[in-house]
This record gives sequence, C-alpha cells and structure tokens, in this order.
Amino acid sequence: MKLAMLNDKIVPVEQLDPIYFDRGIYFGDGVYEVLRSYNGKLFALSEHLERFARSLTEVRINSVDIDQVRERVERAFTTAELADAKIYFHVTRGSAPRNHVWNADLEPNFFLTVDAVPDSSAEKAKGITVSTHPDWRWKRCDIKSLNLLANVLARQDATDKGYDEAILVDDAGLITEGSGSAFFAIRGHTVQTAPLTANVLPSITRQYVLKAAQGIGLDVSEQCLTPAQAAGADELFIAVTTKDVVPVVKFDATVIGAGTPGPQTQALAEAFLKFTV
Amino acid sequence: MKLAMLNDKIVPVEQLDPIYFDRGIYFGDGVYEVLRSYNGKLFALSEHLERFARSLTEVRINSVDIDQVRERVERAFTTAELADAKIYFHVTRGSAPRNHVWNADLEPNFFLTVDAVPDSSAEKAKGITVSTHPDWRWKRCDIKSLNLLANVLARQDATDKGYDEAILVDDAGLITEGSGSAFFAIRGHTVQTAPLTANVLPSITRQYVLKAAQGIGLDVSEQCLTPAQAAGADELFIAVTTKDVVPVVKFDATVIGAGTPGPQTQALAEAFLKFTV
Repeated sequence: MKLAMLNDKIVPVEQLDPIYFDRGIYFGDGVYEVLRSYNGKLFALSEHLERFARSLTEVRINSVDIDQVRERVERAFTTAELADAKIYFHVTRGSAPRNHVWNADLEPNFFLTVDAVPDSSAEKAKGITVSTHPDWRWKRCDIKSLNLLANVLARQDATDKGYDEAILVDDAGLITEGSGSAFFAIRGHTVQTAPLTANVLPSITRQYVLKAAQGIGLDVSEQCLTPAQAAGADELFIAVTTKDVVPVVKFDATVIGAGTPGPQTQALAEAFLKFTV
Repeated sequence: MKLAMLNDKIVPVEQLDPIYFDRGIYFGDGVYEVLRSYNGKLFALSEHLERFARSLTEVRINSVDIDQVRERVERAFTTAELADAKIYFHVTRGSAPRNHVWNADLEPNFFLTVDAVPDSSAEKAKGITVSTHPDWRWKRCDIKSLNLLANVLARQDATDKGYDEAILVDDAGLITEGSGSAFFAIRGHTVQTAPLTANVLPSITRQYVLKAAQGIGLDVSEQCLTPAQAAGADELFIAVTTKDVVPVVKFDATVIGAGTPGPQTQALAEAFLKFTV
C-alpha cells in the first residue's frame, strides 16, 4: 500500500494499527454475540458459545477455538467484577489489504467488552412502543454477523418517530423480528412468534421464553404474524438478551390492550427469571 | 465501559484507539467508494463523489463536506505519485459505545488508502470465468455500504470453485450483478444489463459502458437476465472500476462463444478507454 489517510492526515501505512485493515470494517466480515450475567452468574453461556460456533462455521471462519473464547469470556467477566454484566464479543476474519477473497492463513481478531447491564426496570414496568419498518436485511439473518446497517436504520427510524424498537416486516408482509429483539404476540392463551425457518436469528432468549411459556401452561405457535394480527393481539412483547422479556404497549398507532403490560406477559417474565438463578 | 479485551489481553478502555468502537466495525455503519486514475488522471471523480454523497444521505450521515472529501482524494492522489492509482475511501458514522441508535453529534471517521491499480491485462486478454451464487445481500444495494459479507461469501465460493467472479441471482431467478462488478451480456447487437431499478449499485463504470456501447452502434437493453439467457449469450463481460471492461469466457459450466474474449466486448473496451484520457 502506498499511503493511508485518517480524516485530514496522510499517515505512513506501517504506522497504522492493523485494525484499520480489519475485514470487520471493510466488509463486516465477522460474527458476534451478546450475553449477560444475572447476579454474578453468566446466563446461557454454553448456548451463546454454540450459536457463535455455528455463526463462525457459516461464514467459514474456521480457526477459532471455542474453548478459548469461553475462557476469555469467563476471565473478562471475573475481572470486571460486575454482578449484572453485559458482555459483547466479536471475531472478524482478520486484518489484510482489502480484497473480497480471503487468505486461508488469516489470523482472526477477537474483541470483547464488559459493561454494566443498562437498567430496564422502567421499560418493563411501563412497557415499550414499537413501530414497523421494512425488513431490508440480508437473507442470512440466521448468522449473527456484523452486517447490521439495516437494523441500525430501522431502529433509528423508530427512535425518530418516538418509538422504542422497530419491528421488521418482510416482502411477504410478515413480521420477522425486531431490529435487535425477538417479537411475540399473545392471542388467547397462545404465544406466537416467527419460526426459525423465517429469516430470523435463532434467539436464545426466545428459546427460554418458549420454555417459560410452556411452563406456565401457555400454548406456543411458531408462525409469522402480520402487522394487523400483531395490532389485534391481546398482548405483545419483545425478548432480548440484555432485558429478557419487555412488554409492548403500542404497535404503530394501535394501543395494545389497556396500554399497560399484559398479565400473561408479566407471568412469562417472572417464569423466565427462574431460569437465570 | 468497564473493560475491553483484544485477543487474549485485557486492556483498559481508555488506552484503546477509538477505532475499536467505530460503528463501521460494530454495524458496518458507513459507506465507501473506489476510484482510479488512468495515466496520472483521476477518472470520474465527480461521479464518484456524487454517488458517495447520495450513499451518505441514504444512511443519514449528514455532516460530511463533499468538497473536503474531494480535496482529500486529490491530495492523497498527488502525494502518492502513482500514475495508475486505486483510491479507496470510506466514512463511518463515528466511534461510540455500541448502540443501534446514534447520537446526532457523532463525528464521522474518514479513512482512505492509495495503491497501485493491480494489473488486469492478462484477465482482459484471456477473459475470466464466472459462477452463479444466490444473491443474499440486503435490499438497499443502491447504497454503497460497508455491509458486504454476502458479497465476500459469494466471491469466495466462486474462487473455491476455480472461478474469478460470482454472479448473483435473486429469488426471482434474475441476475442482479457480480459480487464486485456490474454484469453484461451481448446478444446480437444488443448490450443487456440489469436496470438500476433492480437491487443493484448504480455503477459508474456501467454508465460509461452503456455510453461507449451507444458510441459504437450497439443497442442497450436495461432488463434483467436469467442465468440461462446469460449462458446462451453471444458474449459476456463484467465492468468494475479498477479493471473497466473484462470479458467473460465461461458462465458456470458453459463456455461462452469460442471461449475467448468476444469482438464486440473488445470494441467496447477500446471505446471505454477513450473516456479515460
């Protein structure tokens, strides 16, 4: 490479941190996970590592040792000394001059952060609002990749309209999931959410939500909802790693139920929390 | 943020270059351009800057001064002293703790590199081979964004099969474009390529190719091709900024024409080059 430029300044290439040539930034060529602890205990670490391993396989990043990732996650968590920690980590294919084709001997880059889990008690108590947005994402949303611009644009659109989350609607007019969450409706005594055969992430929180639902005697239907069906549901909620079950009280212009968190959603949220202790 | 980890090492957050928190890497939240010079002269700089401005607008990165980008590109090009230079640049929304929603006051990050244009004379003389791959990309390929994992996976698939480029086929069974190129067929005296209303990048090279085609008396048809139509064409070629017109001599298993660059493609390549002097 002849030269590089950062903002206004020409810099010798050899002075640059290799992260400037990370395929993560050139192509979003990497995969990530977010997990959390509850009261000093990591929740569903094995499931997150399993999903991470699958994402790596699907994008063909083959040289990552999952046991080493587990060790790093545990060490970072221990070092951070946070009872309720949010752990983010990603692996990119590595740093190299920009080229779509990769070299098989690239060294992947691992990056991790630990933060306190943001407090979501107010959202849980009052419920949140959601607005719909076209699902612009790619066709491999089963992979938890760093290609998230469609999610970002949808979420920002919701925020600008005064809503808390964007619910994505595909070309067939069906809801897939939220921009950063799984989406659920309760109709009668049935919890309904998109099947994993739709273009959705295999959400780990979703998996525990469905288990919790069965535990409290609700039926489960894995079938896509239309926006009209969602707006007409008795209760709505989203599920997301950092906040688990969050009631939804408004769907686009439609107030859901009494405009307050539904009783079955609250029962579900309580049942979910039993898995975390 | 409590702590970060790079590969095996826990690092204090305040010691990290802000690029580690670049939204470019977290979300692919940025847009880019690639342009080149021919013999000491930048080609189509204004068109590239116009497209870049449009990409920025579409992803709502609003605080970039395009005249400043022009000045940086020209300064880097002059400093590099390369007659045939390849210039890559991107702008990301900026560095911030990971959150889908952005702060309006974020400072965008600009990054640019200058290299010598790789020599493509052998590819042009012999022609290249292409293989088809499902088009997994997002629905806003009119935006030249950093979300390129689908392109990367398609290109690598082609490479692993011994082909030079992947040609993307959408759910309707229509060819959109290559993983890093525009795609064209010549049938009789008509050059055919996907319309810009398809989910394709408004390629600047494409625009000059179509102008060159008209200049040498070819008809232009902006209509999507099926793989079968492409395999049955008289001639095929791709167009890409760094290589302009490159003949295609094999499409999946089908040898095109005599298996050598077609005469009309060669005439087009010559006509194209007249725009660059």
